Amino acid sequence: MDHGILFDHSRTARIGLPETVFCEGKPFEALVELLSRFGNGSGHPILFTRLAPEVFAQAPEAIRTGYDYHPLSRTAFGDTLPPKATGKVAVVSAGTSDSFVAWEAARTLAYLGIEHKIFEDCGVAGLWRLAERLEEINTFDALIVVAGLDAALTSVMGGLTPKPIFGVPTSAGYGVAQGGKAALASMLSSCAPGVAIMNIDNGYGAACAAARVVNGL
Amino acid sequence: MDHGILFDHSRTARIGLPETVFCEGKPFEALVELLSRFGNGSGHPILFTRLAPEVFAQAPEAIRTGYDYHPLSRTAFGDTLPPKATGKVAVVSAGTSDSFVAWEAARTLAYLGIEHKIFEDCGVAGLWRLAERLEEINTFDALIVVAGLDAALTSVMGGLTPKPIFGVPTSAGYGVAQGGKAALASMLSSCAPGVAIMNIDNGYGAACAAARVVNGL
Amino acid sequence: MDHGILFDHSRTARIGLPETVFCEGKPFEALVELLSRFGNGSGHPILFTRLAPEVFAQAPEAIRTGYDYHPLSRTAFGDTLPPKATGKVAVVSAGTSDSFVAWEAARTLAYLGIEHKIFEDCGVAGLWRLAERLEEINTFDALIVVAGLDAALTSVMGGLTPKPIFGVPTSAGYGVAQGGKAALASMLSSCAPGVAIMNIDNGYGAACAAARVVNGL
Amino acid sequence: MDHGILFDHSRTARIGLPETVFCEGKPFEALVELLSRFGNGSGHPILFTRLAPEVFAQAPEAIRTGYDYHPLSRTAFGDTLPPKATGKVAVVSAGTSDSFVAWEAARTLAYLGIEHKIFEDCGVAGLWRLAERLEEINTFDALIVVAGLDAALTSVMGGLTPKPIFGVPTSAGYGVAQGGKAALASMLSSCAPGVAIMNIDNGYGAACAAARVVNGL
Amino acid sequence: MDHGILFDHSRTARIGLPETVFCEGKPFEALVELLSRFGNGSGHPILFTRLAPEVFAQAPEAIRTGYDYHPLSRTAFGDTLPPKATGKVAVVSAGTSDSFVAWEAARTLAYLGIEHKIFEDCGVAGLWRLAERLEEINTFDALIVVAGLDAALTSVMGGLTPKPIFGVPTSAGYGVAQGGKAALASMLSSCAPGVAIMNIDNGYGAACAAARVVNGL
Amino acid sequence: MDHGILFDHSRTARIGLPETVFCEGKPFEALVELLSRFGNGSGHPILFTRLAPEVFAQAPEAIRTGYDYHPLSRTAFGDTLPPKATGKVAVVSAGTSDSFVAWEAARTLAYLGIEHKIFEDCGVAGLWRLAERLEEINTFDALIVVAGLDAALTSVMGGLTPKPIFGVPTSAGYGVAQGGKAALASMLSSCAPGVAIMNIDNGYGAACAAARVVNGL
Amino acid sequence: MDHGILFDHSRTARIGLPETVFCEGKPFEALVELLSRFGNGSGHPILFTRLAPEVFAQAPEAIRTGYDYHPLSRTAFGDTLPPKATGKVAVVSAGTSDSFVAWEAARTLAYLGIEHKIFEDCGVAGLWRLAERLEEINTFDALIVVAGLDAALTSVMGGLTPKPIFGVPTSAGYGVAQGGKAALASMLSSCAPGVAIMNIDNGYGAACAAARVVNGL
Amino acid sequence: MDHGILFDHSRTARIGLPETVFCEGKPFEALVELLSRFGNGSGHPILFTRLAPEVFAQAPEAIRTGYDYHPLSRTAFGDTLPPKATGKVAVVSAGTSDSFVAWEAARTLAYLGIEHKIFEDCGVAGLWRLAERLEEINTFDALIVVAGLDAALTSVMGGLTPKPIFGVPTSAGYGVAQGGKAALASMLSSCAPGVAIMNIDNGYGAACAAARVVNGL
Repeated sequence: MDHGILFDHSRTARIGLPETVFCEGKPFEALVELLSRFGNGSGHPILFTRLAPEVFAQAPEAIRTGYDYHPLSRTAFGDTLPPKATGKVAVVSAGTSDSFVAWEAARTLAYLGIEHKIFEDCGVAGLWRLAERLEEINTFDALIVVAGLDAALTSVMGGLTPKPIFGVPTSAGYGVAQGGKAALASMLSSCAPGVAIMNIDNGYGAACAAARVVNGL
Repeated sequence: MDHGILFDHSRTARIGLPETVFCEGKPFEALVELLSRFGNGSGHPILFTRLAPEVFAQAPEAIRTGYDYHPLSRTAFGDTLPPKATGKVAVVSAGTSDSFVAWEAARTLAYLGIEHKIFEDCGVAGLWRLAERLEEINTFDALIVVAGLDAALTSVMGGLTPKPIFGVPTSAGYGVAQGGKAALASMLSSCAPGVAIMNIDNGYGAACAAARVVNGL
Repeated sequence: MDHGILFDHSRTARIGLPETVFCEGKPFEALVELLSRFGNGSGHPILFTRLAPEVFAQAPEAIRTGYDYHPLSRTAFGDTLPPKATGKVAVVSAGTSDSFVAWEAARTLAYLGIEHKIFEDCGVAGLWRLAERLEEINTFDALIVVAGLDAALTSVMGGLTPKPIFGVPTSAGYGVAQGGKAALASMLSSCAPGVAIMNIDNGYGAACAAARVVNGL
Repeated sequence: MDHGILFDHSRTARIGLPETVFCEGKPFEALVELLSRFGNGSGHPILFTRLAPEVFAQAPEAIRTGYDYHPLSRTAFGDTLPPKATGKVAVVSAGTSDSFVAWEAARTLAYLGIEHKIFEDCGVAGLWRLAERLEEINTFDALIVVAGLDAALTSVMGGLTPKPIFGVPTSAGYGVAQGGKAALASMLSSCAPGVAIMNIDNGYGAACAAARVVNGL
Repeated sequence: MDHGILFDHSRTARIGLPETVFCEGKPFEALVELLSRFGNGSGHPILFTRLAPEVFAQAPEAIRTGYDYHPLSRTAFGDTLPPKATGKVAVVSAGTSDSFVAWEAARTLAYLGIEHKIFEDCGVAGLWRLAERLEEINTFDALIVVAGLDAALTSVMGGLTPKPIFGVPTSAGYGVAQGGKAALASMLSSCAPGVAIMNIDNGYGAACAAARVVNGL
Repeated sequence: MDHGILFDHSRTARIGLPETVFCEGKPFEALVELLSRFGNGSGHPILFTRLAPEVFAQAPEAIRTGYDYHPLSRTAFGDTLPPKATGKVAVVSAGTSDSFVAWEAARTLAYLGIEHKIFEDCGVAGLWRLAERLEEINTFDALIVVAGLDAALTSVMGGLTPKPIFGVPTSAGYGVAQGGKAALASMLSSCAPGVAIMNIDNGYGAACAAARVVNGL
Repeated sequence: MDHGILFDHSRTARIGLPETVFCEGKPFEALVELLSRFGNGSGHPILFTRLAPEVFAQAPEAIRTGYDYHPLSRTAFGDTLPPKATGKVAVVSAGTSDSFVAWEAARTLAYLGIEHKIFEDCGVAGLWRLAERLEEINTFDALIVVAGLDAALTSVMGGLTPKPIFGVPTSAGYGVAQGGKAALASMLSSCAPGVAIMNIDNGYGAACAAARVVNGL
Repeated sequence: MDHGILFDHSRTARIGLPETVFCEGKPFEALVELLSRFGNGSGHPILFTRLAPEVFAQAPEAIRTGYDYHPLSRTAFGDTLPPKATGKVAVVSAGTSDSFVAWEAARTLAYLGIEHKIFEDCGVAGLWRLAERLEEINTFDALIVVAGLDAALTSVMGGLTPKPIFGVPTSAGYGVAQGGKAALASMLSSCAPGVAIMNIDNGYGAACAAARVVNGL
């Protein structure tokens, strides 16, 4: 079986975002082969997402040493893109259970060379935590809002900032919140205007959406 | 065809809440017969809910004059229960589209003889409107929170008050919010503790739930 | 990676309910750090919910000895809040499969210092079991009704008691009952008036809702 | 356009149930042609279901006089099948909103020549109404239980009778109960053993299922 | 923790069906205690359903020897009820993947003392297999039809037999058929009249429904 | 407002199927303008689908006379494509309620110049009606099977013919069958191999799929 | 009944987007009162969305003359905000059925004073129509992509442009596409990176999201 | 327990497609017995699908050596059918995650003796990869298009080729794409005409559908 995936290297030129390897569901052999090609110093900085710690741990050590791996976000990259001179992105998350998604967004921004900062534990059940940081958050050029359960943070943020907002519902929760459909529906129905939404747990996509904004500054 | 519904007159003794006529889906002849029995001065104060204006308008005038009818909430009653000496309930709603449900709750409280007040336009996209009224809202013994779309108001209220809260999702909205399922899921997933939820648009039920609390004071 | 969660210690003052740690989905290291801070005698009585036996068993013994841990309900706390002088809550459940939720509610009430009692095996397929205990159940100030499958117990209870009722659907069941959506829909559609509902399996939330009622007595 | 439907006249011999015309969605011309063929005295007793009053009213009077039409159940037939000597069926319904389905079942039984009786307003929010009639209900050979909303009546009946039970969820209700899916799921999840279920609003099918039982006595 | 479940021993007298232990989701200790009470010769013939082989295998051997255990159907009983003199039930299934449900029905019938026979591999993609056995199937007093995927067998059987039919959709399948919702919807929508349906995989319930018919003969 | 739709006239060359006007949801003025351009003799044979009788009736008579309009299928065309020399398609439908979809398929085939025949009332509740026509049906090169409710006909046909089969679920039905989702799921789950499925009520698409087969003969 | 809605006039200062009146579901009297306050020259340019032609037509002529009303998009405004000096937005739509949403976006941009252009009929079934316009589309600062059915246009655009993209699924379609859920799921699942999504038919929201981008240039 | 499945050996004669063993969910003993009967040289070439590598590995080596087993597609066969002289099928897939389905289709075609070729990595986010191969793809007689996520490839292909197309949605993806329902809905809603769809992950079925086309050439 041949795992020689056709890489779309012209994509960066076309849309400003290099191709990425989504690891979940790919055979282990294919992942190892890809990891062996894009490590530190390869000249091709590629981002690996949804790369589970137990999978990465099974790769040969010689390959692993070429990567900056982050277990909570399940991301790895050898090199990053060159740092961008302008534009910075805030990642605001509601609770501890949302961290893995917030960090996937942050790590993608790091890989793309975009300045960023994470603001955690801003859930609306304790509004004062958000209020204290609002002024700083409003100095960023785009906001990524990560929340599960009722996802009320997205609407509250939407009423407090003029910046582009990309909401990411998370699969954290149980009962009707299980899997993130409640959070997704809540975000899409937001009573605040102009809040745009990504697929459930798609921190990577939110970072790319924010990058499209930063790229145009 | 006989419309002689068996009334459960012992219910008030048993659970403290008299039987009610839910009018939607009942044949017009049956409704007229029931209206003819429970008007002003009949000695049996009965609440009619979901009684559409165009239906009520077709009832004979002699019957209509025996009723206090409120078109927005689609409720009617002849007499109310005796006023309760203790306990009062706040009805807090997010937007104008939620009014018909907030008023169904308020009218049910009026019928049950419970002191109450409506606080409208408290949606979280403009938090200052809620903040200005919070102190007054917290003087009530139970809160009914009515909201559609993302229903974020329920979670915000849940983090700001120690009172019993009964959330009512509304069917206002379109797309994924259509029919109220998004609001319902959002409320059930609330990140604030101890918020209890009613069926979509069930302002009547929320008033009954609040009445159960007031009855125990 | 830092797990220093921002605790909302002012929450007790604001809403009468202290913050809680929902353990499912949190990294093990974060849980151990939190457990190490709030054990018996720490002066900060914190409730841990959804703490699986196999996870708790892996914590260092020195930490575990500071906790009252209950495996069926998956709850742990070091100290409880001071006992409340007034108000008591009944937890009524339908079948053995619903016990883990009924006990999560009961343990939360214990932690909050609220008097309570569990009434198990009251499912409607054998109505005499409920009938025998009804009089005693009606001496409590609020009822938590826990049921899966058709959740018919909620409606039957709603027709037999004037007390505040908080229904908790459980995920017990298979086929269309799998995951608790059938029980949830059934409870929200209850033909009995004024029954308020929590998310699936949310025994903790029902206890908080009942505590809001007891707090106001 | 030709509406000459191929009638399956051998069906009665094969399965003991004659073919029926489900009128909803059929063109008016086709219905009139069919009605013109099977009226009183035609020798072919055919049942028409879901025949709306406003549609029947538009048929020529000469055709209408050949039919026994019942508007609430939306059923019509010219002649009935010969009365059966043995077996009788009880139709038990929860509330007034369920009447149109209970009557569709009763009318189908009448057309099939089966003895039957309707017991209305037996909903579980007032259990005494059911208790008073239970002994009589248990003299029937098969029970049809019609209920919407939480459909709790099915489970309660299932725990009180040894007879075959056919549950019919109704589309009566609003919010999560709208369209009958909540009642259907509740019935399928019944905690009482051996309760079999029909499609939503399918009173006709329940009567046929009961007829299969009566046919075997 | 006490697992002393309240047994409803009067149920047999009331509805002709003894109480049953549904094992899935019950703690192992509770199951062992129950198994220790109702083995062969105990005088209380109790049926255990959804008792997984790996769970049963962990029970002490002294307990296991008191039971007739059947792994495919995951059922166990010590003694059976006395054989009934009249009435027999056919269990007809579509494919091999449906066997575990067909056997749960058959084993329940065995436990209830009712004569029965299984007819497997009757799926409609090869109609001749059904045609060959139709005459024999029609000698039974009630039919249980077990099918997954499109569940077309239920409709075909419904057009070929006058007997009471209880359809059981199975969870066998993948894609849209996964979990049995497609089969359930197909059965409830059957174009054949008077086919009554059970919850997904509920072979036990179908046997009880058939027993209600046989009990009345 | 300009309704000048960009027609894709090269589509016929590219994929062998000319562009079509789906009329539902288009403004009346736009439809009239389009109808005025493609009538009999215009040299551009265009098919109009989902053109409701009450809409077509409002078009000017001068325009209507240029069209062959068929109300049951809601289709219109001026000219047809030239008749194809080879290949013929059978349209097999289950019940009268499925006719509007079967005729949409047939009319599309007529417009495409493909020989075809409709076989109606072949539902599986009366298998003999299908059996009588099977030999003739098997002389066609591709089959379109139209069925609602349980859609069992698709599986039965799939086990009786080697020809390409395109199943079209219809929205006919009520309860769980309402809107056609049950029929769609049943068809996609068919136990017969190699049956391919179209969107609900998409008779037009099925005709195009069959045309792709006929085009390759 | 008082319709005096609390306007959030500070919103423009806070988030750069003035408050808007969503007309669907609001009582006619309330709409007329609002229209009477914000017409041409009132000094308060307010946007009315979802204002149906038949509703607007019933307003007094004196009020209507103060508004620029656009029936396809169902929008009205008296004055617009001052034109912005920088930034322009492209609205790209797939088919004629999507026009009402594309125009709601365009009209909102007009009201907000943002330069924009609509590109219609770019659906992927005829890729050449999109290819011809791609270069021009890429001169805009943000793109709104409006599509129903399979919504494939969003993914194709996402692979061809580096600009921020806001996808709006439309409710156009039938069968599984009915109501827009298929298009919404398709857009959220887009295989192109960084595409952000709005609620179904929410052209207004997409314009606000694009305005947030333009505001930051 | 007897696993003697009734094989439908006449099926090949009837519909041109031999019976197949779907292994998922079948007991291990039954699979081994079946594998022991149909290995290389048995004279009965049978295809086994959904045969997991870990299951196949547990079969006795003497049995395994009689099979051509392919782990990615989870298929096995001893012999193939005789090669067909005419007709060839292209399998076009969008991404690496879709390979297991594309290979199930290809392996089924190999077993059926039909010439075929796989075209991988043709996803629409990089249209040039598809464009380069389009001419070759159009030399095949039928196309199988395999795609997950937004499944946009199906619509794009449908606009570029006149050949019969069978779309197979895959379960690859997360969030709203999880399980393949988004891809399925997108394919069924395709804006390209005449695209027919299979159940999620049903590569086997698509190969059978294509075989029905090839059989008729």
